[in-house]
Amino acid sequence: MENSKNQEALNYHKEGRPGKIQVVPTKPHSTQRDLSLAYSPGVAIPCLEIEKDLQCAYDYTAKGNLVAVISNGTAVLGLGDIGALAGKPVMEGKGLLFKIFADIDVFDIEVNEKDPAKFIEVVKAISCTFGGINLEDIKAPECFTIEEQLKEALDIPIMHDDQHGTAIISAAALINALELVDKKIEDVKIVVNGAGAAASSCTTLYMRLGAKLENIIMVDSKGVISVRRTDLNSRKKPFATSRPCNTLEEAVSGADVFLGLSVEGVLTKEMVRSMAKDPIVFACANPNPEISYEDAIASREDIIFATGRSDHPNQVNNVLGFPYIFRGALDVRSCAINEEMKVAAVLAIAELAKKPVPEVVTAAYNAKHLSFGRQYIIPKPLDPRLLVTVAPAVARAAMESGVARRPIEDWDKYDEELRQRMGLDNKLIRGLEEKAKENPKRVVFAEGNHLNMLKAAAAARAEGICVPVLLGNEERIEKIIAENGINLKGVEIVNLRHDREDARRQKYAKMLTAKRQREGMTYSEAYEKMFDRNYFGMMMVEAGEADALITGVYTKYSDAIIPAIEIVGMREGLNHIAG
Amino acid sequence: MENSKNQEALNYHKEGRPGKIQVVPTKPHSTQRDLSLAYSPGVAIPCLEIEKDLQCAYDYTAKGNLVAVISNGTAVLGLGDIGALAGKPVMEGKGLLFKIFADIDVFDIEVNEKDPAKFIEVVKAISCTFGGINLEDIKAPECFTIEEQLKEALDIPIMHDDQHGTAIISAAALINALELVDKKIEDVKIVVNGAGAAASSCTTLYMRLGAKLENIIMVDSKGVISVRRTDLNSRKKPFATSRPCNTLEEAVSGADVFLGLSVEGVLTKEMVRSMAKDPIVFACANPNPEISYEDAIASREDIIFATGRSDHPNQVNNVLGFPYIFRGALDVRSCAINEEMKVAAVLAIAELAKKPVPEVVTAAYNAKHLSFGRQYIIPKPLDPRLLVTVAPAVARAAMESGVARRPIEDWDKYDEELRQRMGLDNKLIRGLEEKAKENPKRVVFAEGNHLNMLKAAAAARAEGICVPVLLGNEERIEKIIAENGINLKGVEIVNLRHDREDARRQKYAKMLTAKRQREGMTYSEAYEKMFDRNYFGMMMVEAGEADALITGVYTKYSDAIIPAIEIVGMREGLNHIAG
Repeated sequence: MENSKNQEALNYHKEGRPGKIQVVPTKPHSTQRDLSLAYSPGVAIPCLEIEKDLQCAYDYTAKGNLVAVISNGTAVLGLGDIGALAGKPVMEGKGLLFKIFADIDVFDIEVNEKDPAKFIEVVKAISCTFGGINLEDIKAPECFTIEEQLKEALDIPIMHDDQHGTAIISAAALINALELVDKKIEDVKIVVNGAGAAASSCTTLYMRLGAKLENIIMVDSKGVISVRRTDLNSRKKPFATSRPCNTLEEAVSGADVFLGLSVEGVLTKEMVRSMAKDPIVFACANPNPEISYEDAIASREDIIFATGRSDHPNQVNNVLGFPYIFRGALDVRSCAINEEMKVAAVLAIAELAKKPVPEVVTAAYNAKHLSFGRQYIIPKPLDPRLLVTVAPAVARAAMESGVARRPIEDWDKYDEELRQRMGLDNKLIRGLEEKAKENPKRVVFAEGNHLNMLKAAAAARAEGICVPVLLGNEERIEKIIAENGINLKGVEIVNLRHDREDARRQKYAKMLTAKRQREGMTYSEAYEKMFDRNYFGMMMVEAGEADALITGVYTKYSDAIIPAIEIVGMREGLNHIAG
Repeated sequence: MENSKNQEALNYHKEGRPGKIQVVPTKPHSTQRDLSLAYSPGVAIPCLEIEKDLQCAYDYTAKGNLVAVISNGTAVLGLGDIGALAGKPVMEGKGLLFKIFADIDVFDIEVNEKDPAKFIEVVKAISCTFGGINLEDIKAPECFTIEEQLKEALDIPIMHDDQHGTAIISAAALINALELVDKKIEDVKIVVNGAGAAASSCTTLYMRLGAKLENIIMVDSKGVISVRRTDLNSRKKPFATSRPCNTLEEAVSGADVFLGLSVEGVLTKEMVRSMAKDPIVFACANPNPEISYEDAIASREDIIFATGRSDHPNQVNNVLGFPYIFRGALDVRSCAINEEMKVAAVLAIAELAKKPVPEVVTAAYNAKHLSFGRQYIIPKPLDPRLLVTVAPAVARAAMESGVARRPIEDWDKYDEELRQRMGLDNKLIRGLEEKAKENPKRVVFAEGNHLNMLKAAAAARAEGICVPVLLGNEERIEKIIAENGINLKGVEIVNLRHDREDARRQKYAKMLTAKRQREGMTYSEAYEKMFDRNYFGMMMVEAGEADALITGVYTKYSDAIIPAIEIVGMREGLNHIAG
């Protein structure tokens, strides 16, 4: 990234409250009574219940929705061993992804300990705090032992995402790509370039899905991992091939699938051209793939190509998996994340890509059209259906494989709960937007002549959260828009005082007369009111010609008063008040 | 507590989202661009900065405002060793107190490890995650070693609150009580009943403040800790007295001060009567004191009495200290919480009790009047001045004692920051209320005839967040109020259509005419508008006869539309729009 981008990233982290997360109360706490429940003496009661039965911690504490993102900073992003504390921005970021995609609370824990045995002891000691553990950015081969031993020792869901995340997402992509080219996983020749944590996990998962060991060649920085090598550790040996090839170039020739988990630029156009018909190339090196998108596409027309990048089709992105895998696991209080659950995630993700893509997704990606095919073999990260698709599949697999401690009984209700999570979480920021965007309403902005109102309307329209309709004088509005560079081109403006709106004024006046009859309102009084923006806008809504009216709160005070108003409004549903 | 209270406490913890906390993002995260800054690739930049200089973690992560509340559950409340996980509700609750009183984010970490050496290793390993560590509910004598060794090993603020919290608060109370009875701390005879973590810490702190070891007698469950005892551990030995008394009864006789950190009911009326003139009795056993309030008060008139309970005067409550001590320590990036900082906290808390008590505090406690005296020797926990008083005192002491890594340069600005914290934090729930309550404004509720509006006004008034003024027809309002049992007795109602309001309508019409002259509004048009609640209310504000007007948003949709409106309103400051 260039310098300005770097500065932007630093500013993003530094401005306001440093970092990306905060911890907030979820329960009332403004009165003495609240505090006597939240803390002493009331808090003693749930403590005693948990002492009697540890499972009660899921009922009375945040444990059941709390995942630890734990790292020792030995393999952070592509940066290598930068140390535990230096990895904290990534761990916080991972927590943020867990939260916004699956409403899972995350404590990021940076463990300053590289020795696997000691690291394991530390994680074990603090594990009861959490409902699950996401190991992150721990280097190979230590990560294997660490994950294995922790899974052995603990009875909560544990996953080292660097290993299994990529495996799950790329497996989903692979299944779909094979379907498109009408090849069977049992038959295809696969080359895995890279022999780190992700590579062995991907290969293992592909084999579980049907790939044959004898069809797989793994390549590390020293060449093909073959039985002839004498430098292989116990993690690489199982994948050693007896075939007589030694270089990546030889391995790739005639192969059906290339999976790159290595470094930028190692795959050439020529190598791609040497592959079998309809080659599947997943070049997942970060930030730049083993072969660039342009080169890959240029090399041959029958290629199916995926990368880790968001700026090209088919992004293999872990965020398609981990939030929902943990969501499903937590929701059945699973005591593990087992192979069955991972496979269930693979199949659910793959299946989702074959379904019609809702408008909200194409809009989010400025895409014209997305449908299952070579340019769309896996869902997009912002697809809201992932949560309600993948989490239940994982939960079901946990139940069927016997690791669920609290099985889901009513799947419709669970689906509803998942949808609510995304609506309720983070109400102010994301939930609201998502919800509004799903079905943008026609909103009348009553003070259409006002600069702030126009800015608000422009922002709302740009973000797709509503379709603004302005009440006001066209000329004045156009003038303000032009002067202030506001993008509201083509916005609907209703000049309620204009002659041409008289029929409407009359219609609305009749409606208002009927409505206010009891209060003794006459038609002429009502007609008079139709020159008032608030009344006119109200009747637009009443007549079904708009969905809502924004008027505004009038105050001379910039700060002191707003709190009271906001509380009142939010608490008491003033938004619902009829005019 | 009786059963219904117990159930209430369980429900409080269980209902909605189990537990009491959640972790939420603080930075924008709704667009692809946001996520590319929060996570890969942008996040790499702050990582690299921290790798270069670990102190940068305070700039780019939540570390600097993040405290770990860590316990192994060996001495939870008065419940004893209930285990790490069973203590989780308390640790979450402690986190909640940190947040609501000082805007400090807390990860509660339950460590399933009783061995002090191993416990220390675990805490050390995860310590880089945090800006500070609050050790909690760890039993004596292990807690001493644990705190000492962690303080030795780590360069962030660390405090075992069970030891030092009570010491600090009770010391503040002691200083003030002594001032009231005109005794010098150097001269008074002190009996400390209880010899746990808090007792030795209290005694040490009192001595630091001037108390003489030879004037102190400590008593444990076996009697007076004297040089004649052979069963004393190294923590008790330093306090052993050579005076010839063996029982609590003997020790108390003639004493000036009794500090109880033991169990219910061990101090009798007779013992209190045997104390010196103007005895100071702090009976801090939880949940019930060493002598009941009633018995203590009945025993003699010259007593100054404090307990740990909220239902009597002079509550010795740790929450007066720890949130602000950590706040001050974090704000100067202190590498410790040292004795100087604790003493600074004591003095600041003591001093605050001598200042006039603002109305907001007396109101919060339904107290008629609070002023420095025997019934009020320490501030009340909900006193909002604690933050801006204690935190700066602690920060200053850290600077002066050389442990501050980032000294405060502008104390006025720091004061402003502290005030803002309480306003900004938790905007939706507490901050807003506090702010509004500090200076309740006159708010005109335009739709005074509407049930929801009346409910809103009643709630707002009951909570003291504003003084509602209703626009509407008195009779109709009274009827709705009566029918729905709404408490709005004595509320101001303005019937703008009534003849008696004509002078006001005229005055407002003139103002509006002047205001809208440019738009060509005539006086008669303006006068006509004064029969409209929105315009009338607007002009009340304009005329300075009210502070704000609430109109409302009109919609037929209960849910779908609200999000859009809320976003628009909040983002763009529609609240500030003039009508």
